[in-house]
Amino acid sequence: MFIEENNRLKATCTFDNFVTAFTFMTEVAFWAEKQNHHPNWSNVYNTVEIELTSHDAGNTVTDRDHKLAKKIEQLYQKYL
Amino acid sequence: MFIEENNRLKATCTFDNFVTAFTFMTEVAFWAEKQNHHPNWSNVYNTVEIELTSHDAGNTVTDRDHKLAKKIEQLYQKYL
Amino acid sequence: MFIEENNRLKATCTFDNFVTAFTFMTEVAFWAEKQNHHPNWSNVYNTVEIELTSHDAGNTVTDRDHKLAKKIEQLYQKYL
Amino acid sequence: MFIEENNRLKATCTFDNFVTAFTFMTEVAFWAEKQNHHPNWSNVYNTVEIELTSHDAGNTVTDRDHKLAKKIEQLYQKYL
Repeated sequence: MFIEENNRLKATCTFDNFVTAFTFMTEVAFWAEKQNHHPNWSNVYNTVEIELTSHDAGNTVTDRDHKLAKKIEQLYQKYL
Repeated sequence: MFIEENNRLKATCTFDNFVTAFTFMTEVAFWAEKQNHHPNWSNVYNTVEIELTSHDAGNTVTDRDHKLAKKIEQLYQKYL
Repeated sequence: MFIEENNRLKATCTFDNFVTAFTFMTEVAFWAEKQNHHPNWSNVYNTVEIELTSHDAGNTVTDRDHKLAKKIEQLYQKYL
Repeated sequence: MFIEENNRLKATCTFDNFVTAFTFMTEVAFWAEKQNHHPNWSNVYNTVEIELTSHDAGNTVTDRDHKLAKKIEQLYQKYL
């Protein structure tokens, strides 16, 4: 689901509707906060675009990004 | 999932953890608001107890309760 | 806002409407998860009832309850 | 708070931290859904950028955008 590009892990997730998209974002938000690592993300209706990078590592992809990406992929499974 | 008892539709939903339980509540909350019909509900860690009744119909079970119950059951499917 | 009663810290919070009540619950949920200490709480429309107790301390009120209560009181300020 | 630029109403909202930013987004999400009009928005940590435009009106600013902008401004007041 995530691909690495320009020193970022990127994913685009789509859902049935806005409510489901935002519900997914809510669960991701909890885990981002738990890992103290937060996404650059945007939402338009049923689509959520996520980019992960480590600002404090010169905007490169680090283990923290891979860890959060893995969790997000796991959370996304139940919407497929 | 819901059973009718004492003029209420009742269900108990369990999840892997608190975060997932609250994420489920978030999606239910959107639909409750959309249907303008709100649950009596409680949460302790990974458990959500829901009771549906229609206050404005003398605390009886009406079509509005059945409609919301049906939606909640549908939303719950992805957590099973 | 919280009072101690029967080995629990209890509070009842009211809001303008359901959406605002649930928004408050969302912020509390993040902090409960961050402190790894979760409330017994219920919601009916614009009202949220919260009870805090420490299950692993024989259902007594501990520092963990006071800490979460203090945070909840702080979060509630902006709704007054 | 919102300014009109390139056929969009734009606002940037900042908060104390990620949790508060996402809590604000939650309340906005409910109202967007209630008005059946959804923002283009992004979040990085404590910052939320919102753009409102009406896709079905050729990506121009319509009354629906102004209505949602007004509600968002009202919701934002309690975070100031």
